[in-house]
Amino acid sequence: MAPPSQRHVDTSNGVHHSGGDAFPVETETTVPPPGSRQLDAEEFRRQGHQVVDFIADYYARMGDYPVHPGVTPGFLRRQLPQEAPPRPEPGAFAAALRDVRDLVLPGMTHWQSPRHFAHFPASSSTVGALGEALAAGINAVPFTWAASPAATELEMVVVDWLGKALHLPEGLLFHGGGGGTLLGTSCEAILCALVAARERKLAEVAGRRIGDLVVYCSDQTHFAVRKAARIAGIHRDNFREIATHRDDMFALSPTELRAAMQADVDAGLVPLFLCATIGTTQTTAVDPVRELCAVAAAHGVWVHVDAAYAGSALVCPEFRHVMRGGEAVDSFSMNAHKWLLANNDCCALWARAPSLLTAALGTEQEYILKDAAAEGHDVVDYKDWSMTLTRRFRALKLWLVLRCYGVEGLRDHVRVHVRMAASFEGMVRADARFEVVAPRQFALVCFRLRSPEKFGGEKTANELNRTLLEEVNGTSSGPYMSSAKVGGVYMLRCAIGSTLTEERHVREAWKVVQDRAASLLRKMEIIYSVLA
Amino acid sequence: MAPPSQRHVDTSNGVHHSGGDAFPVETETTVPPPGSRQLDAEEFRRQGHQVVDFIADYYARMGDYPVHPGVTPGFLRRQLPQEAPPRPEPGAFAAALRDVRDLVLPGMTHWQSPRHFAHFPASSSTVGALGEALAAGINAVPFTWAASPAATELEMVVVDWLGKALHLPEGLLFHGGGGGTLLGTSCEAILCALVAARERKLAEVAGRRIGDLVVYCSDQTHFAVRKAARIAGIHRDNFREIATHRDDMFALSPTELRAAMQADVDAGLVPLFLCATIGTTQTTAVDPVRELCAVAAAHGVWVHVDAAYAGSALVCPEFRHVMRGGEAVDSFSMNAHKWLLANNDCCALWARAPSLLTAALGTEQEYILKDAAAEGHDVVDYKDWSMTLTRRFRALKLWLVLRCYGVEGLRDHVRVHVRMAASFEGMVRADARFEVVAPRQFALVCFRLRSPEKFGGEKTANELNRTLLEEVNGTSSGPYMSSAKVGGVYMLRCAIGSTLTEERHVREAWKVVQDRAASLLRKMEIIYSVLA
Repeated sequence: MAPPSQRHVDTSNGVHHSGGDAFPVETETTVPPPGSRQLDAEEFRRQGHQVVDFIADYYARMGDYPVHPGVTPGFLRRQLPQEAPPRPEPGAFAAALRDVRDLVLPGMTHWQSPRHFAHFPASSSTVGALGEALAAGINAVPFTWAASPAATELEMVVVDWLGKALHLPEGLLFHGGGGGTLLGTSCEAILCALVAARERKLAEVAGRRIGDLVVYCSDQTHFAVRKAARIAGIHRDNFREIATHRDDMFALSPTELRAAMQADVDAGLVPLFLCATIGTTQTTAVDPVRELCAVAAAHGVWVHVDAAYAGSALVCPEFRHVMRGGEAVDSFSMNAHKWLLANNDCCALWARAPSLLTAALGTEQEYILKDAAAEGHDVVDYKDWSMTLTRRFRALKLWLVLRCYGVEGLRDHVRVHVRMAASFEGMVRADARFEVVAPRQFALVCFRLRSPEKFGGEKTANELNRTLLEEVNGTSSGPYMSSAKVGGVYMLRCAIGSTLTEERHVREAWKVVQDRAASLLRKMEIIYSVLA
Repeated sequence: MAPPSQRHVDTSNGVHHSGGDAFPVETETTVPPPGSRQLDAEEFRRQGHQVVDFIADYYARMGDYPVHPGVTPGFLRRQLPQEAPPRPEPGAFAAALRDVRDLVLPGMTHWQSPRHFAHFPASSSTVGALGEALAAGINAVPFTWAASPAATELEMVVVDWLGKALHLPEGLLFHGGGGGTLLGTSCEAILCALVAARERKLAEVAGRRIGDLVVYCSDQTHFAVRKAARIAGIHRDNFREIATHRDDMFALSPTELRAAMQADVDAGLVPLFLCATIGTTQTTAVDPVRELCAVAAAHGVWVHVDAAYAGSALVCPEFRHVMRGGEAVDSFSMNAHKWLLANNDCCALWARAPSLLTAALGTEQEYILKDAAAEGHDVVDYKDWSMTLTRRFRALKLWLVLRCYGVEGLRDHVRVHVRMAASFEGMVRADARFEVVAPRQFALVCFRLRSPEKFGGEKTANELNRTLLEEVNGTSSGPYMSSAKVGGVYMLRCAIGSTLTEERHVREAWKVVQDRAASLLRKMEIIYSVLA
């Protein structure tokens, strides 16, 4: 039997993208059905199989796409009409899919490319993608228990499953008196925790003292915390980004935190909230949770742990030490969509006292249907745990991922990437022209090209590495990396975590870095000899 | 050729749900592949076709499910293990799908049921669901232009397409110097607008006056505004819910708004933000945008229009009058996932001055990759337009929906529901035992059973209708509606908008209401005669 993608194929409209032949998309000449047929089962079946083949073909060609497209701003806007069509053309769905193939995909950054090493991974899986598809097909809005009992309960089950798999303190799980929820992003999770902390503190201190509340983090903390503080009305002067140092591997120092809090108290301010990070964005630094909690406790400060990226690594026993002392944290969040095969978006937030979340974010309305069956039960209405009413059925995806890969499967997934990162780190260390700037902790390698003394040494190092990154990312068949600048030092970041990445992609990436570096140094040598 | 769902079928594990025979799910005995095979193209094809058939079968049986399940809290948690499996069982994916069919679906509220008339619709389409699936498969994270140029540009194109289709003022579109973005929910949109307004105002007024800022809305405004105000640090005493009246069809009165603002100014407070609503949650009241804007302008107040539900109706010329005077609003949001066939979630937010959004929410970081191609261009980085960094490629779904149904198709979609709602309203009016409480404006009918004088008239009316709703919703093959309580009057809400709803479902729903009402009145008659 020919697979659906090989039936009635028309590639006449196919613009060939730079990665090779475009994959086929079926043509169709039907006119979309009117009215209630817009959710017709057979129409869905027909279109759905097309989409599945489309995505599968895209995965099969993933390695052929340049990770980052060579396009200039406006490239797509110029190609599309300025208005939506009044009526769909015949065969609109297949025509639109062809445009996705020929216009959209060539302009995408391909986050699933095996050569995507920038930012942090957005690790996909077939089960994660299909979990999203299934939830979108069911299309429930589980804002209360009554609004979809199974969706709420599956979310409760799956956050406990995940929390146990990550070996989180029992007190954060429903099982242990706390509880969790699934949100879109860490930005939301941090904001929810901050608002809960703020409301608790404002109830404690007399008067209208929102202007006196102070938020703490390090200069390595993700800007999500600054954003959350700004949104929550914390005064811009009351946001403390405590400086970190290379000696401490860029971790937040409890001593400096203690001093900062004391200074604020002495100035009549009110310490409110600390965000500690396990795995910072720039270099995956790990803040010392236990010691920071002790400092925070002295001032009644809420401690949130942001483990957006590295939280996934807690699935492996060998990484659990980074959460030592976590029993004392008030809340914890991580993005299962980053490194745990649950496609974007899927941020899990746990709190030791969910009642503080609901006290801050909860609302009662006549138009929210109660359910007679729920009366007398202490049901969870997730609308009161976050900023939004409308929410998607994210639990389904995460549950499928945990169920279909298993905890051991997720460990394997993390370890494969850690192993490849170790191998990349080894190659960097073996080449004397380079240095590893921050020791690797998970699957991110931060490195730079040393600037030879005669070219200006440290003074030109940043510029040299900025150029190196541009050249590396400019090769259409090469890797795509990003950068960090910590303590004045510019470095390249190679974050390994794309599901499709194999050892050979890592070796090839390093080869490209070496080649571009050699070429760059050669050019500088020529310029130097001309100028000398 | 047999469709995939008829091959190798095993229903031995099939628990029959109350709606009839469970639909088949394929069995499989393969063990999930390790490592990078987790995003294997052929594995995706195999699992993907299963999921498509699963969803199609679910749609085909949709009418058979009771809209709301007869389950009690804990029903699902009790049935699932307390921990994730260490290793997946053989054929885990098919087994999980069977559990979705047999454990999860029977516990869902089926928002796509043709008999779902509660809340507001979450109108699905095949294209909307598959747009989500496609975006999940591509799994990009388009937080900046560089992080996925095509995703950013398609979002810019599609918000202009949608804005034009809704006939929004040009000043809100990119085309006219404003601009839009796609978020998850109206709660987010309102919060973003409020924070932008707050930052602008705080820059204008001297000192730390966040405690003096006042937010205005009506007592009919969605609790999203109260939630946003709380999150944004507006003092609880500074939140004005201005009372509405039945005479004004529960719309916000400009006269009362003016008086409230003046009183606040006289008290030394600072009017900040007004949220006007087009189509309130309880009765779809329409606030008079033009007149409210004039009042707000006198105090430099930011005006946001929340058209979460009724914004979709603006696609029809006959509804555009509700946005009269909209040229003066600062921002506008609507949920395309409610009534415009774009599955959950898809909230569009437009602002007249996006620079105020980015001034309030924007951040600069070294680790955010710039793109050489973008240099010198004024590119849109959507991370600076909202609360979050991580975002999904929602534009793809909305673009597919607009393209595949066309503006006329969306008009037809809205009009079909409006027509059915008018028909339902007509049936209510034709039965003297009932009354329409708030005149229908879109596709929501608010009605109640009159309480006969001898049973206590107005005094017992609310209790009577509360019981009526419980009985209506308690019939497993009947409709599912919700309630409102406005001006002390409890009423039933019949919101028509499910894509699968046809005229016959509306007639049957009314028949159930009539039958339950008759039975209820009969019972009361008996009790009355016993007591009399």
